[in-house]
Amino acid sequence: MIQVTVWNEYRHEKTDEAVRKVYPEGIHQQIAAFLKEDNFTVRTATLDEPEHGLTKEVLSDTDVLIWWGHVAHQEVSDEIVERVHQRVLEGMGLVVLHSGHMSKIFMKLMGTSCDLKWREASENCRIWSVNPSHQIVEGIGEYIELEKEEMYGEHFDIPAPDELIFISWYPGGEVFRSGCTYRRGNGKIFYFQPGHETYPSYYNKDVQKVIKNSIRWCCPTRNVYPKYGHHEPLEKLGGIEA
Amino acid sequence: MIQVTVWNEYRHEKTDEAVRKVYPEGIHQQIAAFLKEDNFTVRTATLDEPEHGLTKEVLSDTDVLIWWGHVAHQEVSDEIVERVHQRVLEGMGLVVLHSGHMSKIFMKLMGTSCDLKWREASENCRIWSVNPSHQIVEGIGEYIELEKEEMYGEHFDIPAPDELIFISWYPGGEVFRSGCTYRRGNGKIFYFQPGHETYPSYYNKDVQKVIKNSIRWCCPTRNVYPKYGHHEPLEKLGGIEA
Amino acid sequence: MIQVTVWNEYRHEKTDEAVRKVYPEGIHQQIAAFLKEDNFTVRTATLDEPEHGLTKEVLSDTDVLIWWGHVAHQEVSDEIVERVHQRVLEGMGLVVLHSGHMSKIFMKLMGTSCDLKWREASENCRIWSVNPSHQIVEGIGEYIELEKEEMYGEHFDIPAPDELIFISWYPGGEVFRSGCTYRRGNGKIFYFQPGHETYPSYYNKDVQKVIKNSIRWCCPTRNVYPKYGHHEPLEKLGGIEA
Amino acid sequence: MIQVTVWNEYRHEKTDEAVRKVYPEGIHQQIAAFLKEDNFTVRTATLDEPEHGLTKEVLSDTDVLIWWGHVAHQEVSDEIVERVHQRVLEGMGLVVLHSGHMSKIFMKLMGTSCDLKWREASENCRIWSVNPSHQIVEGIGEYIELEKEEMYGEHFDIPAPDELIFISWYPGGEVFRSGCTYRRGNGKIFYFQPGHETYPSYYNKDVQKVIKNSIRWCCPTRNVYPKYGHHEPLEKLGGIEA
Repeated sequence: MIQVTVWNEYRHEKTDEAVRKVYPEGIHQQIAAFLKEDNFTVRTATLDEPEHGLTKEVLSDTDVLIWWGHVAHQEVSDEIVERVHQRVLEGMGLVVLHSGHMSKIFMKLMGTSCDLKWREASENCRIWSVNPSHQIVEGIGEYIELEKEEMYGEHFDIPAPDELIFISWYPGGEVFRSGCTYRRGNGKIFYFQPGHETYPSYYNKDVQKVIKNSIRWCCPTRNVYPKYGHHEPLEKLGGIEA
Repeated sequence: MIQVTVWNEYRHEKTDEAVRKVYPEGIHQQIAAFLKEDNFTVRTATLDEPEHGLTKEVLSDTDVLIWWGHVAHQEVSDEIVERVHQRVLEGMGLVVLHSGHMSKIFMKLMGTSCDLKWREASENCRIWSVNPSHQIVEGIGEYIELEKEEMYGEHFDIPAPDELIFISWYPGGEVFRSGCTYRRGNGKIFYFQPGHETYPSYYNKDVQKVIKNSIRWCCPTRNVYPKYGHHEPLEKLGGIEA
Repeated sequence: MIQVTVWNEYRHEKTDEAVRKVYPEGIHQQIAAFLKEDNFTVRTATLDEPEHGLTKEVLSDTDVLIWWGHVAHQEVSDEIVERVHQRVLEGMGLVVLHSGHMSKIFMKLMGTSCDLKWREASENCRIWSVNPSHQIVEGIGEYIELEKEEMYGEHFDIPAPDELIFISWYPGGEVFRSGCTYRRGNGKIFYFQPGHETYPSYYNKDVQKVIKNSIRWCCPTRNVYPKYGHHEPLEKLGGIEA
Repeated sequence: MIQVTVWNEYRHEKTDEAVRKVYPEGIHQQIAAFLKEDNFTVRTATLDEPEHGLTKEVLSDTDVLIWWGHVAHQEVSDEIVERVHQRVLEGMGLVVLHSGHMSKIFMKLMGTSCDLKWREASENCRIWSVNPSHQIVEGIGEYIELEKEEMYGEHFDIPAPDELIFISWYPGGEVFRSGCTYRRGNGKIFYFQPGHETYPSYYNKDVQKVIKNSIRWCCPTRNVYPKYGHHEPLEKLGGIEA
C-alpha cells in the first residue's frame, strides 16, 4: 500500500467563502477523499499544524507527498523545506499541484524562479497529452477539458522537464507546459497545473486519475541509495592490487 | 500477465561450438527460462521460422518483444521489420539486447547508424547505474560486474536517450552508454548492452533482473492511441460555432 | 560563409493559382530571397530537377539543407533520401519546414510516423517561445503572431525533442510543439511549423529570423567524425601492454 | 568581445606548496592567461576580495562567469550567491569547473546534493566526447587524455543534463558524466570536471579548447527576457474583445 501524505496550506478555505463553497473541508480533504477510493493509505497535513504536520516520523513514513500552497509560501519554515528536500533526494515522491509552483520546496528542487503568467477569468482550459505512452496518462483521453481554470501561461521558468506530459490551451491565447516530470536524487517529482481554489478541478474524474497515476509513477522503488565520498579503486592501479 | 516474445536470430548456436557450450538451447531459451521464474507468459521466435516467428497473431498478442540478433540482421525481411515497427508505434514494448543495436528494427526506430567501437578480448566490464530512482535499476546495486563481456565503446551513434540508465566501464579505457530508454509513438524501448554470445551474461542474476525490470517498464499501459488527420475545431472559430 | 541549399517540392506553385499568388517564383525563391539579405550563400533545388537537384556535389557543398515538401513526398527517390540521410549523419544541418514533417527524410531521421492533426481554416496562430535562452529565438519576442496558418495539432508523433523551442496556440483549441531540435549522428536538425503554401508565412520577419537563426545553429562546426568498428585497447589489458 | 570573469577561491595556492608549484599566480590567472590568447575580455575575482570581487557592477558587466572553488564553499556569502543566481536567470553564462560541483551556486541551480565519489591517486583519466556535433567539442578529438586527474565517479547526484557532452573513464574502474549542459531561466550553464589543484589540467590544450568553446556556447544572445505575472488575454474571451 502506497503511503500518501496530502499537504495543504489550508488558508483560503478558512477565510474565503467562495473557496469554502467548493472545498468545505479543505482542498486536502477532497484530494484525500478521492485517493481513498483507490488502495492508497492517505493522511493529511496542513501549514498551521506543529511542524506543518511534516514531522520526521510523518515524512519517513510517506512514500509520496502531495503539495498545494499559494498565499503562504513564505510561512513554510526553511527547516521543514530542508527536511522535505532531503526526503525527496532519498527517494520520496512529490506531486506539486497548481500554485505550488512557487512553493519553497519546488523552487529549491528546480533552481529557477518558477515564475509564469497568470489570469483568473473563469476561462475554460484544455490539457493536451503529448506523451501518449506514459503511465501518468493511462486511462485519459487525448485531452482533459475543464470548464473553469486559472490561466497559467508561458514562459514558465522551469528547467526543461525530463518528460513533458501535458500542454494546456487557454482561450485567451496562451499555452502552458502543465504536466512535467523530474528526477532529483533518488526521488521523482510531478508538477500538474489544475487546481485553482475557487474552481472544482479536484472533483474532475480525469484530474483525479492523473493524480493517482502520478502517485504510482513517483512512488519509490526498492532502489539502492548511492554511496558518496571517498572511494577506493575497484581495479588495480599502476600494477598495485586495488 | 505480461506476454513476452523472445526473438533470437539463433544462428551462432547452431554453427559455433563455443556458443553452444554457453547456450545449448539457444540464447532465447535461456532468456525464456529466467523470465518464466517470474510471472511472465513467455514464447520464443527465431529467424528461420516462417515469418521469423513474428506473425501478425504473435505480435498482436505480444506486450513486450525482446530482440537478439547479430550476424544475420540483413536476413530479417523488411516486411517483418515494418510490422514490428508498426506494433511498437501502437504501444508494444521492445527490449533490444547487445548486438541488436544494428538490427534493422532498432536502426529504423533510432534514425541513426547505431554504430560503435567493439572488441572481443574476454575483458571484464562494470555497468554503472546513473539513474538511481529508475524502475529499471530496482534491486540492482550501484553497478553490475561481468567477468567477461565484449567491449562496446563510444561514440555510440544513437539519439540522446530519453533516459540514460547505465554507463559501462571497460579495462581497455573505454566507456559506453549501455542502458538507454526511448519512447517512440505509443511504444517504449530499452537498449541494454550485455550479451555477447560466447560469454554467460544471461546467467548473471543482475542482468536478468534488469531485463525483467525493463519488461515491466516498457509493458504497454491502457493508454488511448491518438487520432491523426483532419480535425474539426473544438472551439468556435471566428464567431461561428465549432 | 554558410552554404545553404533550399529544397522545395515546387508543385503547388505550378498548378494552384492561390499558391502562385503568394509565391509566384516558388516557396524556395522566397526563402532564398530573404536568406540572401544576410551573409548566406544560397542555392535552390527542386523535385523535378535531375536527382531532385541534390547531386553528391551539391550535398557535399551544402552546410545546411532546408526542406519543404507536401503532396509529392512519395516521389522523392529512396536513393536521394539515403544520400541526404548520410550527409546529415556526417554533419550537414537540416531545417525541415511545415509539411516536411511527413517527408521521407524527416520520418527516416525520427523513426516515428510524424503524424499529427491538421485543419485549413484561415485561422490565426501564436507561436510561443518556451526556451528563452536559445540561439534560435534570438531577436524574437515572447511569441510570433501569424494572421493565417494551417492548424497542426497534438499529438505530434515525434520523439521527444532534444530541445523544445516553440509551442503553438490555435483558436480552435489545439496546441502543437512547433519548434523542435534534434541531433542525429554529427548533424543537427530543426523542425519549424509555419509555412502553409497559401499563406504568406515566409514573408513574416519573425519567421524569417527564426529560419536564419536555426541555420546558424545547425551549421556544422569543425568537429571530428568518430571512428567506428574494431578498436584496440587504449590501456594495458591483463598485464599485457596495449 | 565576450566579457569573461574568472572567479577562483584562491586558497590552496596560498597555503599549499604543491599547488603553488603548479599555479604560482593562482588557478584564475592561468585560466585568464589562456583565455587572453583568444579574443575574450578577461577579468578575475577571488573569495577574499570585497564582495568576493563580484560586485553588482562586475556581474552586470559579465557575459560568462567561470567558477572554481573547493575548501571554502561555505565562506561564499549567501547574498553574493543570490546575486549570481539572479544574473544566471537573467542570461549570464556560467562555467563551473571541477570541485565547483559543490559550490553553493551550482547546488542552488541544480536542486540536488551534487555529491559524487572521489579519489586522489595520480591516476590518468580519459574524457570521451559523446556528443560529436556539439559546439563545445569543436576541435577536440574523440577523447581528451590527462596524465593525472582526480577521480570523480558515479553516481553524480545532478539532474539529468539537458545535453551530456563528456563521459570520463578512470583506471580504478569508474565512470563519470564529466561535461554537462543546463539551461536555467535565460542562462546557460556548463559543468566540466578537470582541474584538481595539484595537477596541471589547465595547461592542457584540449581542456583549454573546451573551456573556450563552452564560453562561446553559454554567452548570452540578444534574447528577450520573458514577462511574468498578471497577463491580459490576447484573444477575445467569452465574446468580449480582449
